[in-house]
This record gives sequence, C-alpha cells and structure tokens, in this order.
Amino acid sequence: LTQPGAGHETTAMEHPSVTAAVLLIGDELLSGRTRDVNLQAIAAFLAPLGVPVMEARIVADDQNAIVAALNALRGAYTYVFTTGGIGPTHDDITADAVAAAFEVGISERQDALDILLRRYEEKDLTPARRRMARVPDGATLIANPTSGAPGFKTGNVFTLAGVPQIMRSMLEDCLPHIEGGRVVASRTVRGKGLREGAFGDALGAIAKRHPDVSIGSYPWFGPEGYGAHLVARATDTSALEAAFAEMIALVRAEGAEPEVIDS
Amino acid sequence: LTQPGAGHETTAMEHPSVTAAVLLIGDELLSGRTRDVNLQAIAAFLAPLGVPVMEARIVADDQNAIVAALNALRGAYTYVFTTGGIGPTHDDITADAVAAAFEVGISERQDALDILLRRYEEKDLTPARRRMARVPDGATLIANPTSGAPGFKTGNVFTLAGVPQIMRSMLEDCLPHIEGGRVVASRTVRGKGLREGAFGDALGAIAKRHPDVSIGSYPWFGPEGYGAHLVARATDTSALEAAFAEMIALVRAEGAEPEVIDS
Repeated sequence: LTQPGAGHETTAMEHPSVTAAVLLIGDELLSGRTRDVNLQAIAAFLAPLGVPVMEARIVADDQNAIVAALNALRGAYTYVFTTGGIGPTHDDITADAVAAAFEVGISERQDALDILLRRYEEKDLTPARRRMARVPDGATLIANPTSGAPGFKTGNVFTLAGVPQIMRSMLEDCLPHIEGGRVVASRTVRGKGLREGAFGDALGAIAKRHPDVSIGSYPWFGPEGYGAHLVARATDTSALEAAFAEMIALVRAEGAEPEVIDS
Repeated sequence: LTQPGAGHETTAMEHPSVTAAVLLIGDELLSGRTRDVNLQAIAAFLAPLGVPVMEARIVADDQNAIVAALNALRGAYTYVFTTGGIGPTHDDITADAVAAAFEVGISERQDALDILLRRYEEKDLTPARRRMARVPDGATLIANPTSGAPGFKTGNVFTLAGVPQIMRSMLEDCLPHIEGGRVVASRTVRGKGLREGAFGDALGAIAKRHPDVSIGSYPWFGPEGYGAHLVARATDTSALEAAFAEMIALVRAEGAEPEVIDS
C-alpha cells in the first residue's frame, strides 16, 4: 500500500479575467428524456470572444432550484446564460425565477407585448402567450428572430429559450452586451493506437514544463479502433506552439502518426 | 404595463425521498469540444429504481471546482455520481478531489492494483497506469468490465469513468449499493401541429387540477413541421392516468391526433 510518486498536477493556465457560466433549466434534461445541446452551442459562441465557460448547472423547472443556482453563478462569473423555461406553458417559470433571484418585480411589458403583436393577431394572443411578455423589472430585451418571443438580460444574466434553434438565433443579440477577454487558442493532435497509460507520464511532464498551457488527453474508442486526442489550450500563442510541438513529438515517439486536427 | 392574470404554477409533485445528483467533470465538456451523453445514461439507469436526478453540474478539471461541487451535492442529495477524470493522465484528478472533499487520505490500494495487474503485465504498469490504483481511504471499488481500472464509492458518492462505454458498464456494479425510492411513472402524448401558445392555458388548468402529477410541455420543430410532446410524471399511477386522459382530450380538442408514445 505504498503511495506512488505520481501526485496530481492540475492544469495551470492563468485564470481568465472574463468568464461565463451556463444554467440549463428543464425537468426533461434531468429525467433523461432530452439530451442538452445548448451548452456546446453557447461555449462555441463564447470561445472566440475570449469568454470561457467555467461551470454549467442543470436544474429542474423548480423556482427554488433556479434561484439558488442563479444566485451562486451570477456572483461567481462575469456572465450567466440560462436556457429554457420562457415559453407560454405553466411549467415556464424562468422569468419569475430570475426576478426572484434579483429581488425585482416582474410585469408584462409594452415593448415585449408589441413584439408578440407583430407575430400574433390580438385575438390569438391568449393569456398563455401573453405570459411571454412578462419581463423582470429593469431587464433589456434580447431579440428572438426565430419565434418572436424575446429573451432578456437582467444584470449579468442572459435568459434565452430552450429550443436549440431558437436559442442559437438569440445569441446574436447578446453580442453587443458582451465585453470579451483574452482569446484562448487551442491545438489538437490525434493519434490512432495511442494508449493513455503508455504516454501519460510523458504528457504530464510536458504539462509541467509548460505551466501556462492547459493540456488535456481525451481517449476515444470506436469501430475503427482506439486512440486519443491531445489538446493544448492557452492565451499565449507562442507558449501554445512550444507545448504543441512537444505533444506532436510525443505522439510520434509512441509510434502513431500525428494528425493535427485544427490550427 | 398591466400585470396579466396568469401567474406561474409550479409543478407540484411530491418531493421524492430518494434523490441523486450528477457531477460531470472535464474541461472538454465546458469548452464545447465534447457533448455530454453520460447524464442521460445515468438518469435512464436510475429512473426505474425510483431515484430521480434532481440536479447536475459540469465543472472543469480543477480540484477546487470539483471539491466545491461535490460537497454541495453530496450534502443535498441521497446519491452523487461523478463521471470523468479517473484515467491515467496528469489531468485525471478526480480521485484526489474526492479524497479532498471527504477529507480523507488517498493511496494506491492492493486490490485496485491487482485488478490492473490482471490487465497489464508488470512491465507495462507505468507510473501513469498505477495512478489508477489510487483510491480514497475507506472507498469501495466499483468494477469496470470494459477497461479494468475500477471506479469507487466513497460515502454516498460514486466515481465513474468519463468515456461513455466504460461509464455505462460500471453502473451495473453500483446497483447493489443503491436503495431505490418510489418509482416515477411517466406518460407521453405527442401532437403534430400543437402550439404551446394555444393550449398553454388549458394545460395549466389540468396541472392545477392534478397537483400530484408533474406535467411538462416540450415543443419540437423539424423538417416535418412542428408540434409538442406533453409529458405527465407521477408516483401514483391512478393520479397519472387521470391527468393523462385529460391531456389526450386536450390534444384532440386542439385539432391534433394524439400519439401516445410510451405506456
């Protein structure tokens, strides 16, 4: 029962100054009914702005759960993006939860109602649909070019729809409200036949030699065999390239043909 | 700026006595590089045991982040499942983080090492691979029939691999450690052409009449058009069926053909 020499080395990239968190809201995501795709879309949207997603949470359509998560995240990160729960049905309670988290009122707003009235005739504007014009006090509307009903920005929290096509179309109007940070660049090399257990020590040594570069290893298994992707991420491009050159050499030393995937 | 009549009604199913949370660990899930599939698999595994997943969090390969999330979740839910970060590379720090969260030591364990030695010849047991025999003090091993290296159960926390095929194969050995709760049954009806804004008020009224049933509405859009799934969930089967009958009638009243999806 000896303690092995290999301790853990954490990846030590400098802490980013601008950060984001994502709060995914919906019973269906937790029950296994639906698999989320919004986190990936938001992360891909924010990465080129230099805004890394540091944490995500998934909670049910439950006001206490939403408020607790929102208050934890909006205090800890520069921006928070919520998805889900702003539609017209009784289980759409995100707007109320955001207002409760910020301890502000919520009411139907004329500008939001006007947007709905461009979409629906007045006779079709059911009480359910009118719910979508309710916005926390002081919030800024976020345009929804797909289905009309707007999202909104409350403080540092963007509240977006849950349906992926709609959510993605709303990101555009978030852009003017986001002040980006230093962009994290990334480089990936893939090696077929690579085994983490074989190259792990050498990769750990590379990570230690390049403390400003975050280095990850992602094994894959599939019908065509197995292998790993090695990924380097950093804000400093020359540090990134130096570490990446060693990673390519490592793949070759392990007997695999290095395939550089992005650049 | 009038306040509309429609307040929000939360879904009011009785609070389950046995609950779970899922903690997904890995930079790649937050950067957008990888889309998680493990949450859905764990939820599908636990549902028939009467253990609903109440919350999920996604954090980076960062010890402080893992420890903070673990301590929040293991105090709030009956069981916690972590995925990711127990492989052989330097960014695999989950075992250390679990030990830190429980404030116990961590060391290489003979039983875990024996499992690895059934897989690897001693000369191939690199320091990197040996890392996978490090287990928090007092933990119980969880078998990994796919790739050997075990997971472990520490208190109420199950620590599993991140690679989906491996993770799923480890759930089997979690089973003896899980005491289930009341099973939540669910019924789903699909209606093509349904619009949430049109049926939202009526569905809200059904939810109000059946407080022990959790009712959700999930719109869909696709090449074949649009519509919604209406889902009822409850532990009490007769309450479930009563609400579901009204939901089917609602779909029909909206002019759509109700398609019952599961039963």
